[in-house]
Amino acid sequence: MENVKDLTFDSNLSYNTGFQATQLAKAVEIIKRMKKEKATVFLSFTSNMVASGLRGLFVELCKRKFVDVVITAGGSIDHDLIRTYKNYHIGDFSMDDKALHKKGINRIGNILVPNDCYVELEKRMKLIFETCYSKYNKVVAPSELTYEIGKTLDEKSFLYWCSKNEIPVYSPGITDSAIGLQTYFFKQKKKDFGIDVTKDMNKLAQIVLTADKTGGIILGGGISKHHAIAVNILRGGLDYAVYVTTSSPWDGSLSGARTQEAVSWGKIKEEANYITVDCDATIAFPLIVKGVL
Amino acid sequence: MENVKDLTFDSNLSYNTGFQATQLAKAVEIIKRMKKEKATVFLSFTSNMVASGLRGLFVELCKRKFVDVVITAGGSIDHDLIRTYKNYHIGDFSMDDKALHKKGINRIGNILVPNDCYVELEKRMKLIFETCYSKYNKVVAPSELTYEIGKTLDEKSFLYWCSKNEIPVYSPGITDSAIGLQTYFFKQKKKDFGIDVTKDMNKLAQIVLTADKTGGIILGGGISKHHAIAVNILRGGLDYAVYVTTSSPWDGSLSGARTQEAVSWGKIKEEANYITVDCDATIAFPLIVKGVL
Amino acid sequence: MENVKDLTFDSNLSYNTGFQATQLAKAVEIIKRMKKEKATVFLSFTSNMVASGLRGLFVELCKRKFVDVVITAGGSIDHDLIRTYKNYHIGDFSMDDKALHKKGINRIGNILVPNDCYVELEKRMKLIFETCYSKYNKVVAPSELTYEIGKTLDEKSFLYWCSKNEIPVYSPGITDSAIGLQTYFFKQKKKDFGIDVTKDMNKLAQIVLTADKTGGIILGGGISKHHAIAVNILRGGLDYAVYVTTSSPWDGSLSGARTQEAVSWGKIKEEANYITVDCDATIAFPLIVKGVL
Amino acid sequence: MENVKDLTFDSNLSYNTGFQATQLAKAVEIIKRMKKEKATVFLSFTSNMVASGLRGLFVELCKRKFVDVVITAGGSIDHDLIRTYKNYHIGDFSMDDKALHKKGINRIGNILVPNDCYVELEKRMKLIFETCYSKYNKVVAPSELTYEIGKTLDEKSFLYWCSKNEIPVYSPGITDSAIGLQTYFFKQKKKDFGIDVTKDMNKLAQIVLTADKTGGIILGGGISKHHAIAVNILRGGLDYAVYVTTSSPWDGSLSGARTQEAVSWGKIKEEANYITVDCDATIAFPLIVKGVL
Repeated sequence: MENVKDLTFDSNLSYNTGFQATQLAKAVEIIKRMKKEKATVFLSFTSNMVASGLRGLFVELCKRKFVDVVITAGGSIDHDLIRTYKNYHIGDFSMDDKALHKKGINRIGNILVPNDCYVELEKRMKLIFETCYSKYNKVVAPSELTYEIGKTLDEKSFLYWCSKNEIPVYSPGITDSAIGLQTYFFKQKKKDFGIDVTKDMNKLAQIVLTADKTGGIILGGGISKHHAIAVNILRGGLDYAVYVTTSSPWDGSLSGARTQEAVSWGKIKEEANYITVDCDATIAFPLIVKGVL
Repeated sequence: MENVKDLTFDSNLSYNTGFQATQLAKAVEIIKRMKKEKATVFLSFTSNMVASGLRGLFVELCKRKFVDVVITAGGSIDHDLIRTYKNYHIGDFSMDDKALHKKGINRIGNILVPNDCYVELEKRMKLIFETCYSKYNKVVAPSELTYEIGKTLDEKSFLYWCSKNEIPVYSPGITDSAIGLQTYFFKQKKKDFGIDVTKDMNKLAQIVLTADKTGGIILGGGISKHHAIAVNILRGGLDYAVYVTTSSPWDGSLSGARTQEAVSWGKIKEEANYITVDCDATIAFPLIVKGVL
Repeated sequence: MENVKDLTFDSNLSYNTGFQATQLAKAVEIIKRMKKEKATVFLSFTSNMVASGLRGLFVELCKRKFVDVVITAGGSIDHDLIRTYKNYHIGDFSMDDKALHKKGINRIGNILVPNDCYVELEKRMKLIFETCYSKYNKVVAPSELTYEIGKTLDEKSFLYWCSKNEIPVYSPGITDSAIGLQTYFFKQKKKDFGIDVTKDMNKLAQIVLTADKTGGIILGGGISKHHAIAVNILRGGLDYAVYVTTSSPWDGSLSGARTQEAVSWGKIKEEANYITVDCDATIAFPLIVKGVL
Repeated sequence: MENVKDLTFDSNLSYNTGFQATQLAKAVEIIKRMKKEKATVFLSFTSNMVASGLRGLFVELCKRKFVDVVITAGGSIDHDLIRTYKNYHIGDFSMDDKALHKKGINRIGNILVPNDCYVELEKRMKLIFETCYSKYNKVVAPSELTYEIGKTLDEKSFLYWCSKNEIPVYSPGITDSAIGLQTYFFKQKKKDFGIDVTKDMNKLAQIVLTADKTGGIILGGGISKHHAIAVNILRGGLDYAVYVTTSSPWDGSLSGARTQEAVSWGKIKEEANYITVDCDATIAFPLIVKGVL
């Protein structure tokens, strides 16, 4: 057993600190190992993270092909597209939401999103839906839609790099987003336009089934987390898994479930390397990325 | 301002207790009001809750048409179907997950799901997919699929009562579930089978747009929570909203966001009645339901 | 293994529900057992709870001698004394604290405490300190001070019932309170007045050492929680323990530690009956008390 | 309003990231300002932190006289003394606590403390109590006891540096600790030995009353947190305050209360600079310290 070691002012992140610092240091080691072992890396994150500065890290990881598959919520697509054209702002967790609403400002924790962002999204999505409608014979898969969106964006966008680097972006709950709401308007013109979520299942399954090893970097909870681990059931589980979460397991929610629980399901292998870091990703993930690179 | 009042042994849930007891009592009042005002009631919940005894309350509410729309995660459909045929068991939060995996038992917090449950699901879903394939011309909406599933189940199932009582069940992330995994297998036989998630957007939008008033009972977070509140943007927000959550808002996650944040977005109206109860739903929701009825 | 059972509208709290409902039902069973086995019962709680309606339940339990020892924070003594003479009010978690300060109102979550409450406390404590100064030869133990305070209060007060029923109230951190601040003023007159916290150690140790069995009902965290479990090390641990907490264990804090951790320390016996309920006590404790009685 | 900015691989901690990264960057700015304005700095922390590598940072801050007053829990004194002579070890949050107990190992989250540590403490404290008994005329204040303990330790100890640099260490709940338990044994020999917690009130009050400005760096909750902010009521509140916490405010607990709540009480001034960082201190505090220095 290793000793607890006291930090100094210039200490780096250390396994020997205890509590979540230890968990974070383990996360770094596990990600290093999954890369060394050439595992197929699944990165999943929630949409609020794309509204934050973490988007920059997702960009870097996709640009360098550090990850092989992205699984995320519909809102991540919204924010990545909008932030290519518009700025979000830093606010405060305790602002007056009625006053914000009157000013046309939407709040995500301490991040502010002006309403005109969604006007921009509406304009852009119309054209992209048109492209999809003709190119994919009226019905697209979420990963086809994210691919087409990425092609219209620029180097600040993670979708841009995924499209360029052929990293598939899965978003099984894509209609739960501003883009989803736009399909309601678009279908008033093109009734037979559709998004078939089953179209992605085979492609995703093949990645899982043909991989030699798989690793998951799972930031936050919800559908992105579950989809990333659940599809790995097909191969008997992930070989490496890092969860970063702020949710608690005591209500039986998937978002708060620790890595151990996934072992019972065969979503993570019994002999896998896995760790849960209990921390907001805006603090933990930059540390993890620095530790790994 | 009302006084804090000391409880006695036979006190009922009281607004005057303080802390979350006060929040819970407010939640009861808001739901009573939304019913009195004949609001169209949206009920959303996460899948772990259907694995728990809360399923019985969802059944009762759907049976009595207390709610008008259900929005839930894909896993809720899995559990409702399986539990019609099989039992789940009470375990413990700190069981040995490797040992459970060896025994073919899956853990959800302190609830245990034996593997044969998923064999049952596979068998049943094949037939239901066949039905959908012919009846809906190969491509179904999630709400059509949940309707067809409900028709095969019995009185212990909330989907049964929703199908019987024409309560639509929306599940925008439906492929993120065991049922979703089954579509991968089913499509090997029927390549052109699909689930078009945009097919539900118009129907859901019409409910929101034509309602006189709307109310949301939002248990837990994730895609179910967001979809229920986000679609209400089309009408300027919910008139009544009750959140029951265990997540925290400090990481900007939608799951942890308080009702106030939704006001900035127009997902809840500025002048609405709303409250967030910070509690596991297995404790809070039975109290809320008793308080309301 | 027992089955998960679906709730009905008139279900009582049920072990078979899953998640925290199961934990709560276990807590009821454990408390029933500790009473049946005539264990010496330690009740510990934090000061915010005495500001809430839970004070009424503490009163009832002390009145009926359901508990044998109370361990609590200094602020609990403040609130119990003040609320004998003054009312606290129900506010909201998101009130404007600068505005409240200007109005002389102090906030505890969603409970409001007007400044004149502390004027009342000051007046009363002067007299009580005088009594203690002469009666206890200048230096009191915390349990002597709480005894003297209780004797001045009325039937709405838990200290009143503890004094009347000879239930000792330990408060090792008593100077961290408004009463503690008053000692600063009182000592300007009587320099040799003191509170000797070691004076209670022997009395508390004897209770632990002579008890046949001991049980702990531990609401919330902090010094009250730790003192109640730590003193039981002297006898090899509690035989029964129920924790009700909202804190998480991931930062290694004692407040968030589950009952298991205490087993490693010998604060709870290996073979003891113990459970942690993750819930705000204003919701959980009335349910526990109803379940037990 | 500032824009959200995307991180790059070599970004430092940035205010423009959003969520808790923004809070952390604000914390750094506030601490810089409190030092620049020569505020009297109160540092408070919980005992588990002294069991972790954070002890090293407390040492550095006390060595450089970066802080003027330390307020902490009794267990912090235990761990600082023991770790001068013995090692703690890194374990895991989900170890088998019954097995640990059989082996004589105590668990604090994922940190392990062998039983012989407490034998060491017992031996050392006997001598220190003897010293105090003669030097302070039988009855010591907690800050006198911590001063005497610090004098026996070495450069790895924060108490050592506090004693050397005349930084007072207040511990109002000191008997709730292993040291507290030792007073029970010591008093069997020396009945009139005592710890008078009121003895520290005047000294602490004078620091608060004579300071030009005061700042608080408050890590974790409990009695240390409350004592540090409550004593500042005497001067109308702290001018600068940084909280680092993992507790939630929804149960009205002081541990989870945000800085705002303290404004209503006059524990923090209306016009003060204050921020709450929601994060485990083993991750957040090294980042804060690096940012400040």
